[in-house]
Amino acid sequence: MLQRTPAILHSLLDGVGEGWARGTEGPDTFSPFDVVGHLIDGEETDWIPRARIILAQGPSRRFEPYDRFRHRSRNAQRTLASLLAEFGKLRSANVDLVRSWKLTDQQLALEGEHPSLGAVTLRQLLATWVVHDLGHLAQVARVMAKQYREEVGPWVQYLPVLTDHETPRS
Amino acid sequence: MLQRTPAILHSLLDGVGEGWARGTEGPDTFSPFDVVGHLIDGEETDWIPRARIILAQGPSRRFEPYDRFRHRSRNAQRTLASLLAEFGKLRSANVDLVRSWKLTDQQLALEGEHPSLGAVTLRQLLATWVVHDLGHLAQVARVMAKQYREEVGPWVQYLPVLTDHETPRS
Repeated sequence: MLQRTPAILHSLLDGVGEGWARGTEGPDTFSPFDVVGHLIDGEETDWIPRARIILAQGPSRRFEPYDRFRHRSRNAQRTLASLLAEFGKLRSANVDLVRSWKLTDQQLALEGEHPSLGAVTLRQLLATWVVHDLGHLAQVARVMAKQYREEVGPWVQYLPVLTDHETPRS
Repeated sequence: MLQRTPAILHSLLDGVGEGWARGTEGPDTFSPFDVVGHLIDGEETDWIPRARIILAQGPSRRFEPYDRFRHRSRNAQRTLASLLAEFGKLRSANVDLVRSWKLTDQQLALEGEHPSLGAVTLRQLLATWVVHDLGHLAQVARVMAKQYREEVGPWVQYLPVLTDHETPRS
C-alpha cells in the first residue's frame, strides 16, 4: 500500500487548478497542498527515524514528537507539482529501505516509546504509516468534494461527504 | 475530475488482496469492490440517462430512481480487476460523450425533475457526478484504513479515519 500512495495523489492532483489544490475545509484545516507537504514531513522526520530508533534498541527509545506544521514554512514557495514529485522520490526510497531491512517477526515485535502513547511495536508503526496514508487520501478527496458544495444544489442532502468532518483531535 | 477517477481507483486497488478488496465497515456497508460496482451502475443508469432527459426537455423530465444495489447481483461472479477495467471504459466513453455535446450555459441551466429533490439543473447534475466520485474515493480509502484498525495498536486514538463514519442517509 505504501508504494501506491504517490501514484494515487498524482492521479488526483497533478495539474489541478488552484481551487482544488488550495481549498480547505475552513480555518486551520489542510488543503490537498498541505496534505502532500505533511506526508513529505512524515517521510523525512517520522516513520523511518522512528523505525531506526526501535531497531537500534539503544538506551533511549523515545521518539521525537511529530511536528504537524513543519510543512507550512518549509513549502511556502513551492508548487504542488514539485511537492508531488518530491513525495514520490522520498516514498520510493523509504519503501526500498524498509524492504532492504528484511524485517523478521522478532524485529517487528521490538518496541519504542511514543512520547504520549507509550510502548509501541515496529509492526504497529508500519501499520500506522499505511493507515496515515489512507486517512490523508480520504481527507484529500473529501476536501476536494467540499469545493463543490454550492454547485450541487439540492443534492447536498444525498452527499454525506459534503457535510461530514473528522472528529477533531483531542 | 471525472476523467481522473479510473486511474485513481486503479492505483488504489489493482492487484490488492481480498482483505482490502472485500473488507467493509460492517453489515450493509460497501467494500471497495462494491464501490466500483456502484460507480459502474452510475455510468450505465444514472448520470448520462439523466443528462439526456434534461437535454431532451420532453413532456416528462422526471428521472428514474437510482438503484443503489443493482451491482450486488450484477457483479456476483466478477473480479475486481474486470470491474476496474469496465469502469475505465464506461467513464472514458461518457466523458467523451459529454465533451461532444459542447454544452452551452443555456443548456447547463436546463432543468429535470429528481424523484425526491424536485427541480435540478444539468449544471448541478454534472457537479454532483464529480462530488459523488470524490465521496466514494474517500469512502474506499476510509474502508481500507479500517481493515488495519487492530494492527495500529495504541495509535488508533490519533487516526480519526479509523473511528469516523459517514452520517447514515436519511
